[in-house]
Amino acid sequence: MTLKTSKIETLRWIGDERGHLMVIDQTMLPLELIERKCLDVETVWEAIKQLRVRGAPAIGIAAAYGVVLGVQRAARGDEGAFFARLDDVTAYLATSRPTAVNLFWALERMKRHAADLRGKTPPTGILAALLAEARAIHEEDRAICHAIGRHGAELLKDHSGVLTHCNAGGLATSEYGTALSVLFTSQDQGKRHHVFVDETRPLLQGARLTAWELAQRGIEATLICDNMAGQVMREGKVQAVIVGADRIAANGDAANKIGTYSLAVLAAAHEIPFYVAAPSTSFDLKIDSGEQIPIEQRSSEEITHCFGQPMAPEGIGVYNPAFDVTPARLIKAIITERGLIEPVGRETIAAVVGMRSD
Amino acid sequence: MTLKTSKIETLRWIGDERGHLMVIDQTMLPLELIERKCLDVETVWEAIKQLRVRGAPAIGIAAAYGVVLGVQRAARGDEGAFFARLDDVTAYLATSRPTAVNLFWALERMKRHAADLRGKTPPTGILAALLAEARAIHEEDRAICHAIGRHGAELLKDHSGVLTHCNAGGLATSEYGTALSVLFTSQDQGKRHHVFVDETRPLLQGARLTAWELAQRGIEATLICDNMAGQVMREGKVQAVIVGADRIAANGDAANKIGTYSLAVLAAAHEIPFYVAAPSTSFDLKIDSGEQIPIEQRSSEEITHCFGQPMAPEGIGVYNPAFDVTPARLIKAIITERGLIEPVGRETIAAVVGMRSD
Repeated sequence: MTLKTSKIETLRWIGDERGHLMVIDQTMLPLELIERKCLDVETVWEAIKQLRVRGAPAIGIAAAYGVVLGVQRAARGDEGAFFARLDDVTAYLATSRPTAVNLFWALERMKRHAADLRGKTPPTGILAALLAEARAIHEEDRAICHAIGRHGAELLKDHSGVLTHCNAGGLATSEYGTALSVLFTSQDQGKRHHVFVDETRPLLQGARLTAWELAQRGIEATLICDNMAGQVMREGKVQAVIVGADRIAANGDAANKIGTYSLAVLAAAHEIPFYVAAPSTSFDLKIDSGEQIPIEQRSSEEITHCFGQPMAPEGIGVYNPAFDVTPARLIKAIITERGLIEPVGRETIAAVVGMRSD
Repeated sequence: MTLKTSKIETLRWIGDERGHLMVIDQTMLPLELIERKCLDVETVWEAIKQLRVRGAPAIGIAAAYGVVLGVQRAARGDEGAFFARLDDVTAYLATSRPTAVNLFWALERMKRHAADLRGKTPPTGILAALLAEARAIHEEDRAICHAIGRHGAELLKDHSGVLTHCNAGGLATSEYGTALSVLFTSQDQGKRHHVFVDETRPLLQGARLTAWELAQRGIEATLICDNMAGQVMREGKVQAVIVGADRIAANGDAANKIGTYSLAVLAAAHEIPFYVAAPSTSFDLKIDSGEQIPIEQRSSEEITHCFGQPMAPEGIGVYNPAFDVTPARLIKAIITERGLIEPVGRETIAAVVGMRSD
């Protein structure tokens, strides 16, 4: 369906626990604002895999709702079958994308919630409780985004230029975003910013999504190719770089959209502060450093083709990692809903995000 | 016309001084290998402006032939009218693109050659001499490319990874190229290289042209998005970066395709040598530093559209500089046909390229 309303919600659950999920198909933006109806877990898996829904927090929320869809029918059966199905569904959703840790976090939380109710309430009741838990994850994310915005906005001076990469906006979360929440909040506080938007090859989330979100809110923005970031920094147009994250290791190394690492090196060379904005759910304290973060490799056609037409000679070798890892030493601060982590290191992260969980 | 031959010549003059120019239309590669017939100077101007012919040396050669086309008819008239037309034609061609200095160098050389013959030979004779001069520029470039290849190949170790940006290959010159000539020559010497090819947004000269040239010669290559360069460097896959140049100032600052500066910063951060390969005709010793190099700004549609389809919201601001300037301090050596310039500085440049011309 094409949305008629100006209110944009990345994800909407319709009805009670027997209801369904509506997902804005981000692959169609900015040309069309279309919602896809997800009536089963397979459709949610495909939406995550194909980047119809993307952004670490949004992937986590979608997966939580996907669990509900996946166990709806099993809730009419016995407890053993219900929990077997729950295991299958969560294992299946976990295969959709490997890097964003929010996916695994949300699936784990849903499983744990169901396990806590096992033997106390019948499967129909657990199904209702799982929808309530998915809704809670969704609502908590709204509050998290606003808190990230408030903490981050303190870092931005009036009339400063800010560069961002990929889309860490409302579309990547419940609403408002992580990196973009900082900009939106700062703007709400009366400050003005000029935002440089990396187009973010190969899938152009910057050009398609971030530019669109900024335009929706009337924020002054300039679209650039990724390879122009160094030049605009050199011209003195950028006073801060803010990006999101898909997974942050215990030492502060942060995985984010490919190109983020290059940006961090460029920011350091120009003495521009480089910030990562992410909820505490994007930290993976079970892993020591960024070297252990699995990096998704995607299809070569994302680079060699555009609108189905080839842009490179047939058979050329292609390297297409979806993410890279920015070492903690290049990150001035991580902006979380619980406050700033600065300097970025094992101790400061443990103090804000929690003790090591192993 | 579609080329049937395997021999690829960026530019071909057909016939005597009343003949015409054939130009490979590089905007159609790699999908189609098509030559455009240029019967007048306007068609040459358009071919340069629209990047059908591009690359600093090739632009210079095309402009020299364009001068011949532009004065063909005037050669039937008197000397005064001929030289007035020559002035108009060279001034007109100079407006096609602002950055590559080879354009202005070639036009100046053609004018000087005609002026030397003024009063000594009739316009028909000067026309013939101008074609000979354009052919000389073309032939000299072949020798220059091969010499650059020989000097540069000494820098490359067997089995090393090399990263390049944009297209500084045969298509950008008479044949063989500048940066790619180094690779072709090294390969001819029996060394093997794996080449990482930046796709080079917005016009994808890397994906479309460099990848195609490397495939033609059977050199192992991997296409990457520009924002992946830092990551492949970090993974230790790159032992040298080699790029071309559109204009080099007296102090060694080098203008080249946008994104080159970012690459140079990334190479420095990873302690990878960064080389510029360029003929002596790409030096502009009349200007002191890169700050004085005019940088062409191109249309926003190059970034916002692909195959005519929008990829960004309507009305978004766009910054689209075609070039950036890499400061001399980031360039380990400049590879010229006269030998290596290393370290890169005012004195070493003057010693190799010639004394300041002002």
